Amino acid sequence: MENQNPVSENLPKLLILRPPHIIKLFEDQFSDKFQLLKLWESPIPTDQFLAAHCASVEAMLISGLTPITADVLRRLPLLRLICTTSAGLNHIDLPECRRRGVSIANAGSAYSEDVADLAVGLLIDVLRRVSAANRFVRDGAWPIKGDYPLGSKLGGKRVGIIGLGSIGFLVAKRLEAIGCSISYNSRKKKPSVPFPFYDNVCDLATNCDVLVLCCALTDQTRHMINKEVLLALGKEGVIINIARGAIIDEKELVRCLVEGEIAGAGLDVFENEPQVPQELFALDNVVMSPHRAVFTHESLWDLCQLMLGNLEAFFSNKPLLSPVVDE
Amino acid sequence: MENQNPVSENLPKLLILRPPHIIKLFEDQFSDKFQLLKLWESPIPTDQFLAAHCASVEAMLISGLTPITADVLRRLPLLRLICTTSAGLNHIDLPECRRRGVSIANAGSAYSEDVADLAVGLLIDVLRRVSAANRFVRDGAWPIKGDYPLGSKLGGKRVGIIGLGSIGFLVAKRLEAIGCSISYNSRKKKPSVPFPFYDNVCDLATNCDVLVLCCALTDQTRHMINKEVLLALGKEGVIINIARGAIIDEKELVRCLVEGEIAGAGLDVFENEPQVPQELFALDNVVMSPHRAVFTHESLWDLCQLMLGNLEAFFSNKPLLSPVVDE
Repeated sequence: MENQNPVSENLPKLLILRPPHIIKLFEDQFSDKFQLLKLWESPIPTDQFLAAHCASVEAMLISGLTPITADVLRRLPLLRLICTTSAGLNHIDLPECRRRGVSIANAGSAYSEDVADLAVGLLIDVLRRVSAANRFVRDGAWPIKGDYPLGSKLGGKRVGIIGLGSIGFLVAKRLEAIGCSISYNSRKKKPSVPFPFYDNVCDLATNCDVLVLCCALTDQTRHMINKEVLLALGKEGVIINIARGAIIDEKELVRCLVEGEIAGAGLDVFENEPQVPQELFALDNVVMSPHRAVFTHESLWDLCQLMLGNLEAFFSNKPLLSPVVDE
Repeated sequence: MENQNPVSENLPKLLILRPPHIIKLFEDQFSDKFQLLKLWESPIPTDQFLAAHCASVEAMLISGLTPITADVLRRLPLLRLICTTSAGLNHIDLPECRRRGVSIANAGSAYSEDVADLAVGLLIDVLRRVSAANRFVRDGAWPIKGDYPLGSKLGGKRVGIIGLGSIGFLVAKRLEAIGCSISYNSRKKKPSVPFPFYDNVCDLATNCDVLVLCCALTDQTRHMINKEVLLALGKEGVIINIARGAIIDEKELVRCLVEGEIAGAGLDVFENEPQVPQELFALDNVVMSPHRAVFTHESLWDLCQLMLGNLEAFFSNKPLLSPVVDE
């Protein structure tokens, strides 16, 4: 049920309901410094497990897949810190945390560079047909069919970034170095940013060759990329989505790709993962990855250190490294 | 045999032995301004064709696939300009051109950005497993096999660029924006460049996670990347080749990839194109494209304009736009 090492009994307790990736990979890093209370390894039902530790647990570590409801919070009256390995917070009852004085530390921008790199990789892949060319070579077609069709140049492309947070900004930085011209849409114009701002996604699409989705999924952004936006992007247009599948109306996207209403797509995310629309499998101008933009070995190690740093700061009454600040 | 349009007879003559890509795509651009003498459309043998025009041809347009020997040059005594759509010049007898006062204009750096973009695309693809992940999704494996293996982060990687000409420099610029640290090898240290220089490729490989080949194929660089260099690069190392296949000892490369002596490769070029070693087809950590780094629609259009500009400058006694300067 918990670490049997007698030394660990003197360590601060850390509640973990389900193991995040970083625990699967780097558990020793945590068990060296904390007494890990591992629900998923316990034969005891959740209620009893929480009851057994409610009088001592001040900190917990969760992933983005572990919902923290008001009910869970009520069962842990001494809880003061939730460390979540996600950047997003939609799995946590934030008002209840606030009411109870529970602080939250999240992944901050630990993943942002990886996501931005994949966005650029998907864009180069779609425009220069890398994955499709790779299939062409692997199928042995080169000696038989000869020259592979030309791709399209990145330099000079007008790229519209939707959501200019830490990821969007890193995408912009990378694509500027390649010679693309950047404009953006976000909830509001950012005064410190030199790129042209469009407050309307359709206008942005009309004036761009490429759209890169970097925004959060909210009620406002769900199906923001609809038929109208896709038609505004047009027959030469390419869309890259490393954000969330449901930001695009996926049925319309598939139809536009199949019918040639847009030129191509690079998709790390889908509306009903892990289900992917089968119509896309036949298209050479679509590059897909299985929601992997976030993770590399290196960023998980960085995330592990960030979570450890937050926990150590908490237990020694220092400021958190990546606190979630109430807006 | 030649353009029948009577207007064209007043235009300057342009000899074309075989049609470069830009003539296939944009012939009108040239025929509007020049009287095209097209050997490949003529029923007359080459000797007679050249004899028929030798008293009037001052300029010719060639691709990198048309050898210009001393014999060809002797048959065209009035020739003063060769425009080659290639960046390389190894198909032209340069000493004989010099002796005869024939100027040469080449592609300059018209392709460099495209090549650099593909190098970056191949590196992201190999490190983040884009093409392999794309196959995983297309094969319908995601719902069945679940999480795809983690990739490796680009930021922080030590990248060694071999050959820091216009392409190598653009690769460096792009990878710096992604957070890689750059060092390089070239014939000699470049005083104006801030990156660490290694005069020995093996030392460079020892100190790098990634090698990107951007140098010309010469007697000195043939099989420069041999077993020793590959073993120095090591089991975590990745090699990207957008230069020429024969710069790598391909048999050793295949052996190292199959046996896990290096981590992966992104290859646009091969020793015996279009033949590709079949052992590579089974490897997920290898991304291949069929020698397409150079060409996009946009760069061919730019090249067309550059060649037209050189020809117009020549015929109006102005300086060439992209002259080859004798070293």
